[in-house]
Amino acid sequence: MSEAIAILSRTPATLDALLRGLPDGWIAAHEGGETWSPFDVVGHLIHGERTDWVPRARIIMEQGEAKPFDKFDRLAQFEESQGRTLASLLDEFASLRRGSLRELEALHLTDADLDRRGRHPGLGVVTLRQLLSTWVAHDLDHVVQISRVLARQYSDEVGPWRAYLRIISGEQG
Amino acid sequence: MSEAIAILSRTPATLDALLRGLPDGWIAAHEGGETWSPFDVVGHLIHGERTDWVPRARIIMEQGEAKPFDKFDRLAQFEESQGRTLASLLDEFASLRRGSLRELEALHLTDADLDRRGRHPGLGVVTLRQLLSTWVAHDLDHVVQISRVLARQYSDEVGPWRAYLRIISGEQG
Repeated sequence: MSEAIAILSRTPATLDALLRGLPDGWIAAHEGGETWSPFDVVGHLIHGERTDWVPRARIIMEQGEAKPFDKFDRLAQFEESQGRTLASLLDEFASLRRGSLRELEALHLTDADLDRRGRHPGLGVVTLRQLLSTWVAHDLDHVVQISRVLARQYSDEVGPWRAYLRIISGEQG
Repeated sequence: MSEAIAILSRTPATLDALLRGLPDGWIAAHEGGETWSPFDVVGHLIHGERTDWVPRARIIMEQGEAKPFDKFDRLAQFEESQGRTLASLLDEFASLRRGSLRELEALHLTDADLDRRGRHPGLGVVTLRQLLSTWVAHDLDHVVQISRVLARQYSDEVGPWRAYLRIISGEQG
């Protein structure tokens, strides 16, 4: 748990350091089609704080497998973030995350609690431990996504170095 | 140029926010075999500040294609970081990066300068613009790498969510 919280508590500051004050061209950049920009991703993380992680932990603790989690809306940010600035989204994410971690702490989870089971609407039975581990990996997945989106704006500009840059060549390496 | 510097100037704080104070298990984590840990990556970035980016820019400005760049030692950090703490590496990287950006500014590069050419020992002719773009993408590539290494420590812990997490499933998505 303390290992997971070490990452979860750092994500807002990481995204703040990477994104706050960047020129708009970077903030709105995406990878084409319906892929997300850094701005979109921060809105998605906000929606996760409101409806996904701690709310689902609470469903597991209170109702177990009896009540499936509400479905998560992966596209909610396209409406919710409209007209907002990136700065205000970063502030809100940081504030919501602090609140989530306080709520998590207030649950005083034991090792036995982490083995409690809930029901995911698509994946079936999951444990609280899996939910919290996924929260950590999900944060990092979106740090990866934002960094990749930014880097790929230079796919052509790097010229022959393209071959060495896994972030652009698409190799995982 | 100002777009590139916007990213380059943020990387030390981004890594600081993500890594400083994390438990040792996270800092030393890697993806098996000879893959790098977050600790290794920060050492690699330090070596880049010392021997790669600005030194190569200077070779282009002073000697053009006549003098190939020195080869970059991708493994230097395994000796240079020995016995160091992550905190001291993060401090050194931040200080070196500030110095690199000051030196870059002092070159007063014009658009014409960015088209100047140098010779990479493996890739052949490259421009100063390509070098500086690669510097940006290289930073972001390593932010991706560190985040991926951290997330993959939970490859098993996330259970069925594995299917949804591109960072773990290996899909680029």
